[in-house]
Amino acid sequence: MMSEKAAANQLIFRPHFKTHQSVKTGEWFREAGVTAITVSSVNMARKFAAAGWTDITIAFPMNIREVEQVSQLAEQVKLNVLFDTHEQVSALASLLKQEAGYFIKIDVGHHRAGILPDDTDSIDRIISAVGSELLNFKGFLTHAGQTYSAKNKDEILGIHRKSAEILNELKQKYINEFPGIITSSGDTPSCSLATDFTGIDEIRPGNFVYYDLMQLQLGSCSFNQIAAVVICPVVSVYPSRNEALIYGGAVHLSKESLNRPDGRRIFGLAVPFIDGKLADADAWLPPEGDDFVVSLSQEHGIISLDSQWSKNLKPGNLVAIIPVHSCLAVDLLGSGDF
Amino acid sequence: MMSEKAAANQLIFRPHFKTHQSVKTGEWFREAGVTAITVSSVNMARKFAAAGWTDITIAFPMNIREVEQVSQLAEQVKLNVLFDTHEQVSALASLLKQEAGYFIKIDVGHHRAGILPDDTDSIDRIISAVGSELLNFKGFLTHAGQTYSAKNKDEILGIHRKSAEILNELKQKYINEFPGIITSSGDTPSCSLATDFTGIDEIRPGNFVYYDLMQLQLGSCSFNQIAAVVICPVVSVYPSRNEALIYGGAVHLSKESLNRPDGRRIFGLAVPFIDGKLADADAWLPPEGDDFVVSLSQEHGIISLDSQWSKNLKPGNLVAIIPVHSCLAVDLLGSGDF
Repeated sequence: MMSEKAAANQLIFRPHFKTHQSVKTGEWFREAGVTAITVSSVNMARKFAAAGWTDITIAFPMNIREVEQVSQLAEQVKLNVLFDTHEQVSALASLLKQEAGYFIKIDVGHHRAGILPDDTDSIDRIISAVGSELLNFKGFLTHAGQTYSAKNKDEILGIHRKSAEILNELKQKYINEFPGIITSSGDTPSCSLATDFTGIDEIRPGNFVYYDLMQLQLGSCSFNQIAAVVICPVVSVYPSRNEALIYGGAVHLSKESLNRPDGRRIFGLAVPFIDGKLADADAWLPPEGDDFVVSLSQEHGIISLDSQWSKNLKPGNLVAIIPVHSCLAVDLLGSGDF
Repeated sequence: MMSEKAAANQLIFRPHFKTHQSVKTGEWFREAGVTAITVSSVNMARKFAAAGWTDITIAFPMNIREVEQVSQLAEQVKLNVLFDTHEQVSALASLLKQEAGYFIKIDVGHHRAGILPDDTDSIDRIISAVGSELLNFKGFLTHAGQTYSAKNKDEILGIHRKSAEILNELKQKYINEFPGIITSSGDTPSCSLATDFTGIDEIRPGNFVYYDLMQLQLGSCSFNQIAAVVICPVVSVYPSRNEALIYGGAVHLSKESLNRPDGRRIFGLAVPFIDGKLADADAWLPPEGDDFVVSLSQEHGIISLDSQWSKNLKPGNLVAIIPVHSCLAVDLLGSGDF
């Protein structure tokens, strides 16, 4: 779906591999025609370079402490790094032995990383610090992560449009001096919901590969697009408080939480799981009710028994937990190892 | 300190190894005279059994799905399991080939796992479901985890006293029938702050081995008792918003958060770190100000630059992050592997 959307909008599709971190899942992208990828760490870049990926953007401002590893990677693959301060530039420029590309990270309002769009002094300082013909300016990149706090679809689309305009204005300002520079954007909520990508040349969504409860609540996906669950055994049932204990805690699901419209803080949603031993194949089913994971400690999870299905759960049954944030659950469960 | 406190109060000291999960750190306990340990999973029990520990309590209600592994473990070590529902009992009793002990988990108010103290019907149902001479009743066990939401030291001590009374009442009710049963308690806040352990026979604190920011805020420890930090590189500095980006995110620190008295939600505290290359040894120093980790995503951490020290940070510097919850940071960083 995302691949077709990118093609229909003439976008470069450079999916983020940090969600799955899996060589095998990566192959599914290759089958869909993907040749360029995004990762969030030098280690991840090395892993996918070893798995045969040759065009990699590390979408995390370059960590000066890893400059040697970055330089080595540039000798193996077509590598892009991110700069948002001139110190990063000089550290890499002096070491580089092979060509590498760099994007300037722009802060379009998420206020996590990047240079503010009006701060062209800092942008120019980066460009002029390069001083190496091996380091090529590729364009302006952002992650409009503020879409994750949006209240509705319109707000997400508004952030997306504004972010595209900001990047495109910067591109137009610099394109005469640097022909070929592009704009790169692509948080999962925007990429899932937007139909207009004017001003954007490349998208880098990641989470959409599995989606999760957070994306469902944001409206980025439907339930049947969610492709990752954590199967957990029911250990005990406490009818007096309509709760059950599952073996599934913070070390499996992460402590990422979601505030429900009614103010409750939740850590996942339990849905029925059909064991392959009982049926043709393993499967999870749509939610039966608000059977939320209401608290998590290191190994314990507590689910609130709201539906008729969950009220019938017995110790030893299996449930599927839709994680709040699939990226973190996948990282914790080592699902990237296959 | 904890070992001496246990000895001074004639308590069995059975420290919880889930915080460090490390064979090497386990050896420090052995040097302090510890011979019995607590773990929170069957896998952890196997790991420490392989490392030569012979007296292990798995302080998580028994997961029926792991009953074969539990039974095998009972053939290797002196094993105690936890029951809080009769289904667990019959599943294990029918398989067991060697003696094992069981505690009945009591819910003294945390409402995570366990039987409510007044529910002697459920307690009796467990005892009568045993039906195997290999399964020995060891006593009543609790984790008064509600101390973590306490507002002050007095409230923690109140929870501790009440929890000790509840367990001791149950013990007195059953001791004629089962001579030798004990009471087992021991969340880190209670064990750190209490001086009176009347009614308690065994303590099982775990977190105190490293402590963390949560325990510091609760008053369970002083800053110089904290023994685990995550060293993170400063990647970028953003003077316009007095913030810096560190390479240290949810996959390193966990998304465990703490609400400060002023209402802010934080994910860690940055303190100066002295690199061993610059000094005699690696060291971290006391906080210079409210240099909190104010947001975390998968690999990104943002610290708020409050002190003079932090305002002088440059890309490439290292900072020490005191984690909110050391158990989860240690689990994520694989520190248990050594």
